[in-house]
Amino acid sequence: MKTVAIAGATGAVGAQMLECLKERKIPVNIKLLASARSKGKIIDGLVVEELKEDSFDGVDYVLGACENDVTKKWMPWAQKAGCVVVDNSSAFRLEDDVPLVVPEINAQDIQNNQGIIANPNCSTIIALVACDALKKEFGIKRMVVTTMQAVSGAGVKGIHDLETQIIDPNAPREAFPYQIAFNLIPQIGDFDDLGISKEEWKMQNEGRKIWHDPDLLVNCTCVRVPVLRSHSESITLECEKEVDVEKAREVLKSALGVQLKDDPQNKVYPMPLDTTNQDDVFVGRIRKDITDPEGKTLSLFCCGDQIRKGAATNAVQILEKLLEQN
Amino acid sequence: MKTVAIAGATGAVGAQMLECLKERKIPVNIKLLASARSKGKIIDGLVVEELKEDSFDGVDYVLGACENDVTKKWMPWAQKAGCVVVDNSSAFRLEDDVPLVVPEINAQDIQNNQGIIANPNCSTIIALVACDALKKEFGIKRMVVTTMQAVSGAGVKGIHDLETQIIDPNAPREAFPYQIAFNLIPQIGDFDDLGISKEEWKMQNEGRKIWHDPDLLVNCTCVRVPVLRSHSESITLECEKEVDVEKAREVLKSALGVQLKDDPQNKVYPMPLDTTNQDDVFVGRIRKDITDPEGKTLSLFCCGDQIRKGAATNAVQILEKLLEQN
Repeated sequence: MKTVAIAGATGAVGAQMLECLKERKIPVNIKLLASARSKGKIIDGLVVEELKEDSFDGVDYVLGACENDVTKKWMPWAQKAGCVVVDNSSAFRLEDDVPLVVPEINAQDIQNNQGIIANPNCSTIIALVACDALKKEFGIKRMVVTTMQAVSGAGVKGIHDLETQIIDPNAPREAFPYQIAFNLIPQIGDFDDLGISKEEWKMQNEGRKIWHDPDLLVNCTCVRVPVLRSHSESITLECEKEVDVEKAREVLKSALGVQLKDDPQNKVYPMPLDTTNQDDVFVGRIRKDITDPEGKTLSLFCCGDQIRKGAATNAVQILEKLLEQN
Repeated sequence: MKTVAIAGATGAVGAQMLECLKERKIPVNIKLLASARSKGKIIDGLVVEELKEDSFDGVDYVLGACENDVTKKWMPWAQKAGCVVVDNSSAFRLEDDVPLVVPEINAQDIQNNQGIIANPNCSTIIALVACDALKKEFGIKRMVVTTMQAVSGAGVKGIHDLETQIIDPNAPREAFPYQIAFNLIPQIGDFDDLGISKEEWKMQNEGRKIWHDPDLLVNCTCVRVPVLRSHSESITLECEKEVDVEKAREVLKSALGVQLKDDPQNKVYPMPLDTTNQDDVFVGRIRKDITDPEGKTLSLFCCGDQIRKGAATNAVQILEKLLEQN
């Protein structure tokens, strides 16, 4: 039986990776690794070990759920031990020899890995799963996206901020620079000189790689919202061909990882509370953009659990593909 | 001294109209009108009277803060009494002989009134105040907008829903079809056969009238968010001319009703908590859209208190213009 280590097992994503491995009954030995601070903690009957240079001896696969700096530190140790790493950080996503994979879209890229496969950013995964069938059908050239991202995208500290501020707006802040309860913060990540945040760049940069489409254009505005879990995205798609709402619904109905929730007259549309703790991305509010005289533009709204499909589930699905290959 | 009646004085907008009249020290007699249920209530030292057929006798101006159906009922009474009505409902906004006015933009239209002047929709006012100087500078052809609207847009019941659900998610719902605490609802108003909601149509329909631009195009997605007060909007503007971020900031700095909050590197950007109880619209996150090769597209984020500038303040500003004219 293969051995899988979760690096960063005590964080929100790491804990979800463990849950996904168990839920999907993946037949592997599991090793939990985290910082010295968490050493000895017991999660689901497993003792957390300190992540050290020799932690990866005897490990076949690593699911990485650490911040970039920590990931860069242990990656050489995992490489030296011959592990194949599925990494959720953004540290290696855009490197040429690292496949960036959403299994529903480009599972075939996994086989080109040199020991690291990167998990895309949460908002990117959710948007691309929602739009992949539409890209195949209509050919997406440009996306205008506003993301509304849950506090748990900032980890357990983000959840803490919202939960404490609901009671006391002046409670000490751990994750966000401003109060997030009853507020919106139009910043996720640092800004560059163009006024675009790191998070806002990811969908274009990562989307081009996943879809093998170097010409993809994405204008993205990322906003933090007082939702505990599940990101939502308002997306307008400029396509090569004329779009058709019925056709869009039809291809989404059979799209992998998608649940069509699109009957607005009967109040059926995606909401982040409904996708919480779900692996599928919900897509709805599909409509032809009446402001495009050529009829090539489609608008939609989608939601997805960014800790599951936006992180842990996607990584575990990649692991499943790796296990199938061997 | 002229007499001003507030019709619907006990609602969120009516109460704010009274506050605005007092704050701005407008020298008028004030009469508060509401349904029989509120008769005898005392607000700020004034006794609420029941709105009846003869309520408008001796009244010069009416500030209307009622739902459409109620407004349609009393409007003939006010007309018969010779009042000039500034109405916040959407009942008369698109009628040819009713000016639709944002004083910072088209105050001159007030003089064409036939006894009714309409207040635009809250999201429309906020977006147009944010964008008017940019329209003059660059010529806006098309807007792609995602609004994130506070619960108080649905009145006191909306506030009630959020405040009770924060404590108990299963508390009885009064305003929204689903839980709004820790959630987002991508519906504001009913949907038509195209899948576009009433609220989503307003920005294009009303924007064309206010800006006297029948060719304006607006693709709008309206989302209810768990914020108590102040709407936020993520806006992408396709312009006739090439845009320039520094020029955009310059014209916004001197734009009426606008406060420029645009220094993202130092975490300065608009947030709904900061515009709460403010009359100005805050604008920031201004950046050139890197996905438009012609450089004619600009993105921004803005927030405004939809009960103040989005409703009461705007109506009272129109009243001030009317009083100046006489």
